[in-house]
Amino acid sequence: MILRDALHGLTRFDQFRKSLSVAPNILADRLTRLAEAGFLERRRYNERPPRDEYVLTELGRDFRPVLYAMMAFGNRHFAREGLASGLADTTTGLAADPVVVDAHTGRRVDDGTFTLVAGPAADDAVRARMAFAAHRSAA
Amino acid sequence: MILRDALHGLTRFDQFRKSLSVAPNILADRLTRLAEAGFLERRRYNERPPRDEYVLTELGRDFRPVLYAMMAFGNRHFAREGLASGLADTTTGLAADPVVVDAHTGRRVDDGTFTLVAGPAADDAVRARMAFAAHRSAA
Repeated sequence: MILRDALHGLTRFDQFRKSLSVAPNILADRLTRLAEAGFLERRRYNERPPRDEYVLTELGRDFRPVLYAMMAFGNRHFAREGLASGLADTTTGLAADPVVVDAHTGRRVDDGTFTLVAGPAADDAVRARMAFAAHRSAA
Repeated sequence: MILRDALHGLTRFDQFRKSLSVAPNILADRLTRLAEAGFLERRRYNERPPRDEYVLTELGRDFRPVLYAMMAFGNRHFAREGLASGLADTTTGLAADPVVVDAHTGRRVDDGTFTLVAGPAADDAVRARMAFAAHRSAA
């Protein structure tokens, strides 16, 4: 939720607290954890008294598409009382429909033609899983 | 991790336990929670002794693209020792590059032309957030 707010341009403790209606100690803990994980960066905007704001890092910004895919999934399946928020195309004002495609081919990754494969750093558990999946597909 | 294994065709308790190296009580708890949340469905495959397997529901299958977007994000930023697994195009054998686009226009949702907007079911907090974001964009 903090990341979603950060995407809206909220950067300050009081803004997050007000927007999320969350207890100060819980919010402080979450901001610290997101900063430690590299999604948010602390930036001092006032010296006396010392005040930091929190801005998205490159990592945090790159997480946006994941969040949008997650929101679209939630909107599709759980918005029984209508949508609380969604993504819109600012060039047309129309609602966007976030889907996940392969950048090389433009095909949707859930069209049945993509499969998970082991990479060079796969451990035995991953390899066993992939071998099992391949065996199942062949059967 | 259970969902990822389920995508590989794993359905049975012992398969999950072996693949995930997780304690039986923890695995049982997670399977129950995923079933309660509607991502997995229990299906009896043996009567004596009673044995259930766990298969993805429509909801669980529809979560795949989100998981692939998340994996791609993780592979981009955290796979310092190389990729453990990734998505491949079965028609060419090439690695896929999952990105999130708007289905209507094909444009990437992080190209700067999309914005979050309040929907009909937005509460005051959501509306305030959107108004703030719009104010910031205009500034």
